[in-house]
Amino acid sequence: MSRANFQGKIINDPVYGFISVHNEILLSLIDHPYFQRLRHISQMGLAQLVYPGARHTRFHHALGVMHLMQEAVKTLRDKGVRISDDEGLGLSIAGLLHDVGHGPFSHALEHALFPVQHEQISLLLMRRLQEQYPCRAMEIAIEIFNRSYPRPFLCSLVSGQLDLDRADYLLRDSFYTGVVEGAIGSDRIMKLMNVHNDELVIEEKGIYSVEKFLLARRLMYWQVYIHKTVISSEHLITSILKRAKETLREGHDVFAPPQLRYFLENDVNVNDMLQMHDALEHFLDLDDNDIISAMKQWAKHKDETLSFLSGSLWKRKLFRIELQDDPFDAKTLRARKHLVENAFPQFSGKMDYLFVNDTVKNVLYQQDNPIKVRLKNGGIRNLDEVSSIMSSLQNVLEQKRYYILYPRA
Amino acid sequence: MSRANFQGKIINDPVYGFISVHNEILLSLIDHPYFQRLRHISQMGLAQLVYPGARHTRFHHALGVMHLMQEAVKTLRDKGVRISDDEGLGLSIAGLLHDVGHGPFSHALEHALFPVQHEQISLLLMRRLQEQYPCRAMEIAIEIFNRSYPRPFLCSLVSGQLDLDRADYLLRDSFYTGVVEGAIGSDRIMKLMNVHNDELVIEEKGIYSVEKFLLARRLMYWQVYIHKTVISSEHLITSILKRAKETLREGHDVFAPPQLRYFLENDVNVNDMLQMHDALEHFLDLDDNDIISAMKQWAKHKDETLSFLSGSLWKRKLFRIELQDDPFDAKTLRARKHLVENAFPQFSGKMDYLFVNDTVKNVLYQQDNPIKVRLKNGGIRNLDEVSSIMSSLQNVLEQKRYYILYPRA
Amino acid sequence: MSRANFQGKIINDPVYGFISVHNEILLSLIDHPYFQRLRHISQMGLAQLVYPGARHTRFHHALGVMHLMQEAVKTLRDKGVRISDDEGLGLSIAGLLHDVGHGPFSHALEHALFPVQHEQISLLLMRRLQEQYPCRAMEIAIEIFNRSYPRPFLCSLVSGQLDLDRADYLLRDSFYTGVVEGAIGSDRIMKLMNVHNDELVIEEKGIYSVEKFLLARRLMYWQVYIHKTVISSEHLITSILKRAKETLREGHDVFAPPQLRYFLENDVNVNDMLQMHDALEHFLDLDDNDIISAMKQWAKHKDETLSFLSGSLWKRKLFRIELQDDPFDAKTLRARKHLVENAFPQFSGKMDYLFVNDTVKNVLYQQDNPIKVRLKNGGIRNLDEVSSIMSSLQNVLEQKRYYILYPRA
Amino acid sequence: MSRANFQGKIINDPVYGFISVHNEILLSLIDHPYFQRLRHISQMGLAQLVYPGARHTRFHHALGVMHLMQEAVKTLRDKGVRISDDEGLGLSIAGLLHDVGHGPFSHALEHALFPVQHEQISLLLMRRLQEQYPCRAMEIAIEIFNRSYPRPFLCSLVSGQLDLDRADYLLRDSFYTGVVEGAIGSDRIMKLMNVHNDELVIEEKGIYSVEKFLLARRLMYWQVYIHKTVISSEHLITSILKRAKETLREGHDVFAPPQLRYFLENDVNVNDMLQMHDALEHFLDLDDNDIISAMKQWAKHKDETLSFLSGSLWKRKLFRIELQDDPFDAKTLRARKHLVENAFPQFSGKMDYLFVNDTVKNVLYQQDNPIKVRLKNGGIRNLDEVSSIMSSLQNVLEQKRYYILYPRA
Repeated sequence: MSRANFQGKIINDPVYGFISVHNEILLSLIDHPYFQRLRHISQMGLAQLVYPGARHTRFHHALGVMHLMQEAVKTLRDKGVRISDDEGLGLSIAGLLHDVGHGPFSHALEHALFPVQHEQISLLLMRRLQEQYPCRAMEIAIEIFNRSYPRPFLCSLVSGQLDLDRADYLLRDSFYTGVVEGAIGSDRIMKLMNVHNDELVIEEKGIYSVEKFLLARRLMYWQVYIHKTVISSEHLITSILKRAKETLREGHDVFAPPQLRYFLENDVNVNDMLQMHDALEHFLDLDDNDIISAMKQWAKHKDETLSFLSGSLWKRKLFRIELQDDPFDAKTLRARKHLVENAFPQFSGKMDYLFVNDTVKNVLYQQDNPIKVRLKNGGIRNLDEVSSIMSSLQNVLEQKRYYILYPRA
Repeated sequence: MSRANFQGKIINDPVYGFISVHNEILLSLIDHPYFQRLRHISQMGLAQLVYPGARHTRFHHALGVMHLMQEAVKTLRDKGVRISDDEGLGLSIAGLLHDVGHGPFSHALEHALFPVQHEQISLLLMRRLQEQYPCRAMEIAIEIFNRSYPRPFLCSLVSGQLDLDRADYLLRDSFYTGVVEGAIGSDRIMKLMNVHNDELVIEEKGIYSVEKFLLARRLMYWQVYIHKTVISSEHLITSILKRAKETLREGHDVFAPPQLRYFLENDVNVNDMLQMHDALEHFLDLDDNDIISAMKQWAKHKDETLSFLSGSLWKRKLFRIELQDDPFDAKTLRARKHLVENAFPQFSGKMDYLFVNDTVKNVLYQQDNPIKVRLKNGGIRNLDEVSSIMSSLQNVLEQKRYYILYPRA
Repeated sequence: MSRANFQGKIINDPVYGFISVHNEILLSLIDHPYFQRLRHISQMGLAQLVYPGARHTRFHHALGVMHLMQEAVKTLRDKGVRISDDEGLGLSIAGLLHDVGHGPFSHALEHALFPVQHEQISLLLMRRLQEQYPCRAMEIAIEIFNRSYPRPFLCSLVSGQLDLDRADYLLRDSFYTGVVEGAIGSDRIMKLMNVHNDELVIEEKGIYSVEKFLLARRLMYWQVYIHKTVISSEHLITSILKRAKETLREGHDVFAPPQLRYFLENDVNVNDMLQMHDALEHFLDLDDNDIISAMKQWAKHKDETLSFLSGSLWKRKLFRIELQDDPFDAKTLRARKHLVENAFPQFSGKMDYLFVNDTVKNVLYQQDNPIKVRLKNGGIRNLDEVSSIMSSLQNVLEQKRYYILYPRA
Repeated sequence: MSRANFQGKIINDPVYGFISVHNEILLSLIDHPYFQRLRHISQMGLAQLVYPGARHTRFHHALGVMHLMQEAVKTLRDKGVRISDDEGLGLSIAGLLHDVGHGPFSHALEHALFPVQHEQISLLLMRRLQEQYPCRAMEIAIEIFNRSYPRPFLCSLVSGQLDLDRADYLLRDSFYTGVVEGAIGSDRIMKLMNVHNDELVIEEKGIYSVEKFLLARRLMYWQVYIHKTVISSEHLITSILKRAKETLREGHDVFAPPQLRYFLENDVNVNDMLQMHDALEHFLDLDDNDIISAMKQWAKHKDETLSFLSGSLWKRKLFRIELQDDPFDAKTLRARKHLVENAFPQFSGKMDYLFVNDTVKNVLYQQDNPIKVRLKNGGIRNLDEVSSIMSSLQNVLEQKRYYILYPRA
């Protein structure tokens, strides 16, 4: 492509219409295998069991965040906020790459296969990319991502209670699931943003919209992200991977493509990922397809536990979940466990796979990292001080629920 | 579930809002493994390489068609058309199951792995299901599907130029790709349908909407279904599967889950599928995940052809495509072939994989199976007689284009 | 139209796609002059000054409510709720006619021209229509409207905290204003409704959606219905009409079409409306166009007060509004009044027109008319008992705000 | 508003989400009474009789066009097209003011009250505004509007076969009517535009989208703008105004606000509008409300013709319309006329009001002002040469239909 004719690329996006990319570094990063891998990592994991439309990927989400970053830069500049070209590009890069370290069914992998948080891998990959794209914007992107950049509003756009990551995923997940109650006006939120002393603030007239944003997010958590069926199926996939690992170590072969086998055979920790070429290479080769393709085989494995767990997920005979506001009392726990033990005597000694007692949390608002509101009179206040809804909801700003999971007899 | 409380199921669908299912047979068919398999067969194959939102599945499409069938029954009954309960249910079943025989990347499999059309497998599976659900509605569904039911309008709703399969896929594919020009008012089309002597007709005032529907479909073909990149990538996957089969037969092992290996090792024809339990079982176990997971391995295979083809798709180094209105002349073909042979001497003898000369067709309107229009005066006419657009487009009702494909040097 | 061909009517509606009417009484009521009058009564009064898209009418809203009633009947019947044909039709009629008594800029007229609530006129008109359509469904419609029908859930669908009037106006007003945060899933709400002992209930899993509905309604109040500019302009139009009446009585002619002049010249009360043919006839002839057309002339009237008020609205020099959570203290009130008196000495003695001290109320949830929730275990509870959000918001279930209004000096 | 804090204005628009205005001249023009008048001129005239949602105004449309102009400038600059700040602002002003000369029910007024085209009045008003805003951008706006600006692509964006006026009205009218088939991707069209030698061109890959745009426009004409009922009611309003004028001149008073009376009493021509302060002042005071308010009175006028015509429109007893592809033959015309004369003997001598024989035209594509396409190879061609659809539709590029109108007996 000759430079003279270089006009960028337009990507169709049902959420925003079009995503335009006119910067060559961004285009090149999008084409990079690190980023292309995200085409095969589904954004919402197993939520598609409940919401069949929810098949979109981290790839599309990351493009969406990058798009919102570009829009935010335009909007803020229109309002007179000074943002340099390197900062603008750095922000877009940070948006594009913020999830680049996600693995398949991310939390499952993180819990079952290797104990490394996806943010750590994202940072690692961004540093590798910096070697290939040694420019100031890339440097800024990394500083924004790890919150060390001196202008905090840029960091807040990538990670904060009103960041554009959330704006995109709420809008996108709402769009693809069809849960319209989760749709938020990302446009409106952006139009209401401003910058005061390099901090991100919301104009006073935007309070209702921000309340709405936070409540929509809460609703999406209860209704989608921590929907009972989703919790149940995500536990299952973690258990399946754990058991596959165990089965292999017990000396029984399990079907797996090499990159998955690597993680089943090895205990990989964060240092391995940082230092071992192998670990990272295999990680970069692994995606949702490998897990599903393998799991289908495992449903026929002669190890009863592995086949039971895998079959339960594959045939959607998900574990029963009881979810409540208070912890389960000892008596109930004993009763349920007993019930499971009786119904599944063949799994005695494997009860950790069959009976789970855990919690989920839904955070409406973090008071320790407040959203700043700029009043019409110029004053700056925390949202929870000026919103009558937020101040009334003090006791539900963070809600915890308790659940137990076990197979249906 | 006790009968007293039976109230059906509601499925979120971003396209229609909600899909309600209140009939127990429909619910049971949806839960059947034959149908659940479609969760892992993507509706638009490799179009997601161009349109990253296009990740929806045959599962969701089939639910959508079933939904439209239910709506059509209500709409036509409101207009005074008599439709029995068994016919209504049969129509919904036919809508639900019309694509149940699709394999992964359907045409690729059909061309590369076994020469059986998906309609034949759909029919086969519907007959199997009839054994489990031996009711009149199921019988009617099969008759509607194979066009032997005596009331033709029911068959036309499932398969015809204005069928609800097309209505759903145009609407859904347009929705997920973000190519809004393809969106058609399925509501409007249905509201304009009527029945005359048991034939499906369109009211005269609906002519513009039908013209619009046909032209939107044509646009979706050029812009999406037979987009250059889509053609190129679908050829590649066919070639990859063919070469994998060949490689195996040449005595080199290739990585594959058993159900894929089965089709690589065996030449399965339509009779095998009908008669051999094995063939069908393996088919039912195979989905997109297996192909992608295997193909990733093949990109590293020591067989140069297999790894070249697989790597080309995986790394999106797609073959170059030249597309034109007229056949390529012999001179051009020779020149291009020569160019490829020179650039890839290692593949001499494998040129069939590297150089393709083929055609695509875009049918705007089939005159031999006309859309019937009921004029205000009661007369029935063919659409191409009463639409000035359609009659003017006689010479482009069917457009053929010629293309050649070859790897970039 | 011959009966044999009678197939009803389809009305385009951007909110629902299409509104179908297949019943002849409904069609006839829609064509009735009482109902057609609503084509010229704007749904949102002067909110179009802030939201230029908000030009839709009571006519369209009433059709929307009728449509939702038809859908609710289908949905509830699908769930096994018995609803007779007369009840179904009666419900649709009640939905269609619930606002038929609205006058132009309804509250303005109600306050300024004659002290009759629109519900009373709606009921009066429904009774007149009953004489022309003497059928059981019409009788039921009236009983549903005045809440005397023995099956309360039917009354609740027309008037209650989750009625379909609200569902339509929230959705429609959100659609036309572009305030997407107010959009509620009317579909979802309906799908979650059920009937228990002839009372309307919401399924437990619908709690989040109902919370969302209530909070969206609250947001629409603050952001749209009682937006500062809207309050200010609605006060102005009331004042303008009052002053026009007074001016006429002071012996100065004012331009007005006869039906408006009638109400300027006469003090009409509820009995007049019920008993005097004249009053009702003139009322039925009056719409938004007359008020706006007259007001434009009044802006040039020689009565300084009338022309000042009319000009302020017409030229959008709206009064300044100060809005706060607590009552204004006496000192502030005195200060502001003094300021106005000094700036507008020509209006001494007319200060009631120039200085307003009043309140607005936003009711999130009415505890005395609770929304009933049916728990999964079958129990029935009030929403504010089972929703952690609602129970936390006890102190903001009803919010009052205080405002003063006065012309900018 | 202090300059330091000047941050522009955000207007809610359901079509685009938000319309942002950051330029002070634009803001000031929007607030100008010339422009505010458009709040009371409905965009689609009487089409709201068929499409009740179609209540939007010229005000909103003009804001929409201004918005698209702003977007087009950004898009084209992103592609490397040089557009100066004055040109960018001038283009936005031209978009904002292109319809500022529209009168109520524009064509009715133009035909019935005074023979001046709205473009002439727009130009006149723009020149008056230039006196108040004497800047280069305003000058450019006028040159763009009257097509004398030396860079043709700027003129083409305001007026041409792909201008943004059309883009907005198709999208907006489709949105508010609910005729989704008319929706066009304004985003897509803009993304596909480019500039070659200062001429507007479309990239080759945009051919399908442009075909779609033209066909959607054609559909909107047949289905909405020249819908039978719309034609019939627009003829009526013209007749009503003509007859009101005549009645007044015959010495009978008719109710009318002064600004309407002025045009009923005086024959105003283009020079009067340009030279007489009075004529323009009255014109600027006149809007839809005045016409409707007056017409309601006229429906009770003692002049039988005036009351018959006004009543026909007000009570929606619209004249019957027969529409066909060929001219009506003399025999049919005589027969219909005879029928009307017999049915309405009281209107003998007024048959011009009761019987109309006229034509409508729907132009799909203007070959004499072609859309330019830039091929991938760099060549520039006319759309009708490179689009197989357009070249096949040669004989329907412009369609004329013939109709007669007369009251139902």
